[in-house]
Amino acid sequence: MPKRDGVIVGVDLGGTSMKALAVDARNNILAVEKTATDRNKKPSDLIADIASVARKAVESAKLEMKQVEAVSVGAPGSIDHNNGIVHEAPNLGWKEIKLGPELKRHLGVPVVVDNDVNVGLVGEHALGAGAGAAFVAGIFVGTGIGGALIAGGKLYQGSRGGAGEIGHTVILVDGPLCSCGHRGCAEALASRTAMERDVRAAIQAGQQSVVLKLMAKKEKSRMTSSIIHAALKQDDEVMRNVLERAQRHLGILVANAVNLLDPERVVIGGGIAGRLGEDFVGPIRKTAYEYFLRPDDARRVKILPGQLGDNAGALGAVVLARQRLGL
Amino acid sequence: MPKRDGVIVGVDLGGTSMKALAVDARNNILAVEKTATDRNKKPSDLIADIASVARKAVESAKLEMKQVEAVSVGAPGSIDHNNGIVHEAPNLGWKEIKLGPELKRHLGVPVVVDNDVNVGLVGEHALGAGAGAAFVAGIFVGTGIGGALIAGGKLYQGSRGGAGEIGHTVILVDGPLCSCGHRGCAEALASRTAMERDVRAAIQAGQQSVVLKLMAKKEKSRMTSSIIHAALKQDDEVMRNVLERAQRHLGILVANAVNLLDPERVVIGGGIAGRLGEDFVGPIRKTAYEYFLRPDDARRVKILPGQLGDNAGALGAVVLARQRLGL
Repeated sequence: MPKRDGVIVGVDLGGTSMKALAVDARNNILAVEKTATDRNKKPSDLIADIASVARKAVESAKLEMKQVEAVSVGAPGSIDHNNGIVHEAPNLGWKEIKLGPELKRHLGVPVVVDNDVNVGLVGEHALGAGAGAAFVAGIFVGTGIGGALIAGGKLYQGSRGGAGEIGHTVILVDGPLCSCGHRGCAEALASRTAMERDVRAAIQAGQQSVVLKLMAKKEKSRMTSSIIHAALKQDDEVMRNVLERAQRHLGILVANAVNLLDPERVVIGGGIAGRLGEDFVGPIRKTAYEYFLRPDDARRVKILPGQLGDNAGALGAVVLARQRLGL
Repeated sequence: MPKRDGVIVGVDLGGTSMKALAVDARNNILAVEKTATDRNKKPSDLIADIASVARKAVESAKLEMKQVEAVSVGAPGSIDHNNGIVHEAPNLGWKEIKLGPELKRHLGVPVVVDNDVNVGLVGEHALGAGAGAAFVAGIFVGTGIGGALIAGGKLYQGSRGGAGEIGHTVILVDGPLCSCGHRGCAEALASRTAMERDVRAAIQAGQQSVVLKLMAKKEKSRMTSSIIHAALKQDDEVMRNVLERAQRHLGILVANAVNLLDPERVVIGGGIAGRLGEDFVGPIRKTAYEYFLRPDDARRVKILPGQLGDNAGALGAVVLARQRLGL
């Protein structure tokens, strides 16, 4: 049975759900499958779930696994991309998990593994907001804040694939406590988690806000991007103030990245950027421009919302697999 | 007359003085010449001075300019290294100065120009504290704070040679005012200039310190590295406290760079590191380790003082010229 058009399955392995896309050589999405990530399962069972969602995507595309060139996974945490090992993924409770080799055993095709933020930026660089630029910084804002860098057209990996933790750069020494245990990280000031903390604190302090009511109505335990969007539509002042403060911190974070790394483009990805688009990125851009060291960078450096939405990671995993395997 | 052993003249163009080294193919320093940088001169006259100090180094090495392969200059500010143009050097009051072409006209040999911090790190990477590492971050602490990055064994230049401005990354939002006009930059918290400001403020507030007396005695208008060293030797408490605060901020800055860029080594260069060595770098390293995101980076990432002292820039300029010109 011949390979069909170099089909690759890209998997975006998230902390709450995983998504598999079957993609052909021209980057057409042939099929999409999604399933919950059950973090209570032991790693080997969760890896069986990844194999299963990848297989389902192949079936939905009316193909068989042997017609597929590779399966490529974007996984959270610190990754040894040469050996497909997840060193540490706090989101999944994983340590030193041989994701690549085990998936390969399940599926019988080559498997590529890299960090979820890295593949997200590779996706935006190949097919979205970063297209055509050789130096692109990516900042992905969600429950946390992740970063990645394209340098000279290629993913910057650092000395052992751990680069990009821009969310854990300190921008306010002795600032609020971060999930990593340090204080003042960008993630503790401007992630969705930080915004939810600030909204709850404002409500606790007696300010009026529709956020908790919206969460109850939509049966969400967390302040998701859609809750933020809905609250802003109702002109919720607490939400607006909290968002503006986060945007200012993100603007300074973007300027730090531009002053340090001299990219020609910055892509703001993740759920909030996907939901709010220019309403999210506009104020970030404005602050970033104020903090640029080289004034002409304001003409030169484009700051754009991601264009691929939820598909950035899985599509980027496909593109990266093609590069790695020389397809 | 034959070229002699691929001799190159490296020039470190500083805001107060410039230094030229004649260096042979085995990186032996054949001659050293130094002269003051007169910032009141117009650019073309200052460039004539650079040509003159380079010529003197060649004469001291008992050579003639036609025996020299190239002259290579590390200049402050933002540089177009492809065309040898200094876009902007606030230290010199320069804007869009054709340093490379004009020097070439004076000297009749190929001229290479790059940023002073870039060539400093190239020097430490080739011949000093960065030797043997493929990913090296350099942080140079002096009147300002400069940065540079070696990635995959090569100088990271960014999209137009402007990368490395780690001194103007904000680490304390709304913190003290920086020379660049923004607030909370690392340079406004931990440069020699920031330390002098804090020492003067402490004295103003009535604290006892020997620093101003030492400056008067040594006829220095600024708190130089040697003044800092002398004050610490006299156990000056104001100096010690101010230095410790700067070291803590530098440790956080180092951790930001490691978390973002994943280097295997960090070189702390510049005058204070040269003067104080491990007494300067030790406390920086301790704080950086506390702020590392990946705990095993504390075993993996070496943080070292620069080894080449004042010669890092000129030697690095020589090494870079050899790479650029394929010598």
